[in-house]
Amino acid sequence: MSTAQRATVDALMRQVPFDGSLPPERMRKDFEAQMTAGPAPAGVTVTPSVLGGRPALTVEPEGGPAAGTAAGTAPATDPATATGTDPATILYFHGGAWVFGSPETALQLTAALVRRTGVRAVSVDYRLAPEHPFPAAVEDGLAAYRGLLDQGVPAGRIVLAGDSAGGGLAIVTLLTAREAGLPLPAAAVVFSPGLDATLSGESMTTKHEADPVFTRADLAAVFTHHLAGQDPAQPLLSPALHADPAGLPPLLLQAGSNEVLLDDSTRFAARAAAAGVDVRLDVTADVPHVFQAFEGLLDEADAALDRAARFVTDALARAAEKAW
Amino acid sequence: MSTAQRATVDALMRQVPFDGSLPPERMRKDFEAQMTAGPAPAGVTVTPSVLGGRPALTVEPEGGPAAGTAAGTAPATDPATATGTDPATILYFHGGAWVFGSPETALQLTAALVRRTGVRAVSVDYRLAPEHPFPAAVEDGLAAYRGLLDQGVPAGRIVLAGDSAGGGLAIVTLLTAREAGLPLPAAAVVFSPGLDATLSGESMTTKHEADPVFTRADLAAVFTHHLAGQDPAQPLLSPALHADPAGLPPLLLQAGSNEVLLDDSTRFAARAAAAGVDVRLDVTADVPHVFQAFEGLLDEADAALDRAARFVTDALARAAEKAW
Repeated sequence: MSTAQRATVDALMRQVPFDGSLPPERMRKDFEAQMTAGPAPAGVTVTPSVLGGRPALTVEPEGGPAAGTAAGTAPATDPATATGTDPATILYFHGGAWVFGSPETALQLTAALVRRTGVRAVSVDYRLAPEHPFPAAVEDGLAAYRGLLDQGVPAGRIVLAGDSAGGGLAIVTLLTAREAGLPLPAAAVVFSPGLDATLSGESMTTKHEADPVFTRADLAAVFTHHLAGQDPAQPLLSPALHADPAGLPPLLLQAGSNEVLLDDSTRFAARAAAAGVDVRLDVTADVPHVFQAFEGLLDEADAALDRAARFVTDALARAAEKAW
Repeated sequence: MSTAQRATVDALMRQVPFDGSLPPERMRKDFEAQMTAGPAPAGVTVTPSVLGGRPALTVEPEGGPAAGTAAGTAPATDPATATGTDPATILYFHGGAWVFGSPETALQLTAALVRRTGVRAVSVDYRLAPEHPFPAAVEDGLAAYRGLLDQGVPAGRIVLAGDSAGGGLAIVTLLTAREAGLPLPAAAVVFSPGLDATLSGESMTTKHEADPVFTRADLAAVFTHHLAGQDPAQPLLSPALHADPAGLPPLLLQAGSNEVLLDDSTRFAARAAAAGVDVRLDVTADVPHVFQAFEGLLDEADAALDRAARFVTDALARAAEKAW
């Protein structure tokens, strides 16, 4: 439908190719400049906050959360949320290869979900490598989720979300929450998640030319910071290969067909389906890594965000029914 | 959400286990009795017709097709359908392991799509094995699609659909239409498609206990009729393994996690994504083969049909934009 738009996006992305061998400080500055150049996102209010001991941004729909069961405050008749004052919450994890990025760099994407769902988001500034290699970010992910529960937000009113490494962190947080015996959130929605630190997907080579951003070599270079010599072949680093997804809540994985990380999504989706998880894999043709960031420029971005929002809304509604 | 419903459905299915070694006539009678026991579907009118030289059923929404671009007649301003009289059409292929089934046995499912989309369906009585082994059904699938084009229905106003073997036939018809140089339809939506006549999926063994209907052995037995000694390792018999999906229109594959055919969907979805196709894999947890047939009994069936209908509507709308 948007051949010209997709060509434009591809060209834009090729202007800022990723170099995983740069010093982390340089990667951080470049990514911040790239992702925060636009105007502040419309339709939301953004407030600094703290969650699980880490700085965060709370992103709320202007005018407050939407009413009803699907989003916003739960109905007063729902015994799981009897006060009727618990807002549904999207717990968002930004992308950045575990080394760069922040809630600010993911703010447009977070706001896009908030506007479409009427559900507030809390986006966490989890610790980054090389200062804090694996499992620091994973610990912060679980602490953030636990923090929401401690604030009294029922698990069924929470949806995890994230992009790229942050999409991986959302999935991994489901695994660590399950292992910790915590009640699980209503769902998770992830954009181009990183789910294989061994970089073993066939798409690493088959999509080498098509991917305008990443190469396997650059990902291998940047992942050395997060791995810090640890074996990538373990469930919390390569869940697409080594995690048992049994018992996870409904998952939506979105990816573009023009990314070396495509197989992270296709393999984890197959693995989740095999384990009896409600899972949707949603691949958009001829678009790159986290193409949803091109909201307003690329029809496919808006359409994918619409589907993601519908998934969030449906999942919250189903969790509310279940709580009855 | 519907633990009790899912247990009921599982128990119902286990009462009618599939025996692939029975005589074809017996399989046909049993399946017909099972699938046509209920009342006639509501909200649709059903008319015998002919398409591509084969008998068919035309299933129309009561009151005629819905208005607007998404369904029913195209807007008169759409140059691709300038008369404004071309109805959008779902070309439906019933299930039945290439040996049994008919438009009547799939009528509830076909009607469910028609009611939800406001789009008419034509369901084709393609030739069955053993009287007509491969590639007879495949030829009839292409002839039916060509028949719609010959009637003046623009390709972009057609969506292919099917369940089980018929889901496989929908996908295979895309492949043969592409090879024939025909314009391709707007999309295809398939329920638990059979896409691997070699029966090589891991789910053939890992879902052996969970699947209340099929075993690999029974599928192998019934597939001998369709194969008639031919090699199953070819694109039109095992597209999940051997087809090149490049250039296919958007695809939605729905499956249950409790079926030995699960990997037919997960592998074809991954293959389509790798080939740059817009594809969605939509797996519902803890439900069996073609669980959508339990509309009204199983919440997951209605939810999946709702998603399928939305996919059809969106795909027709996008194809109409493209034709502009």
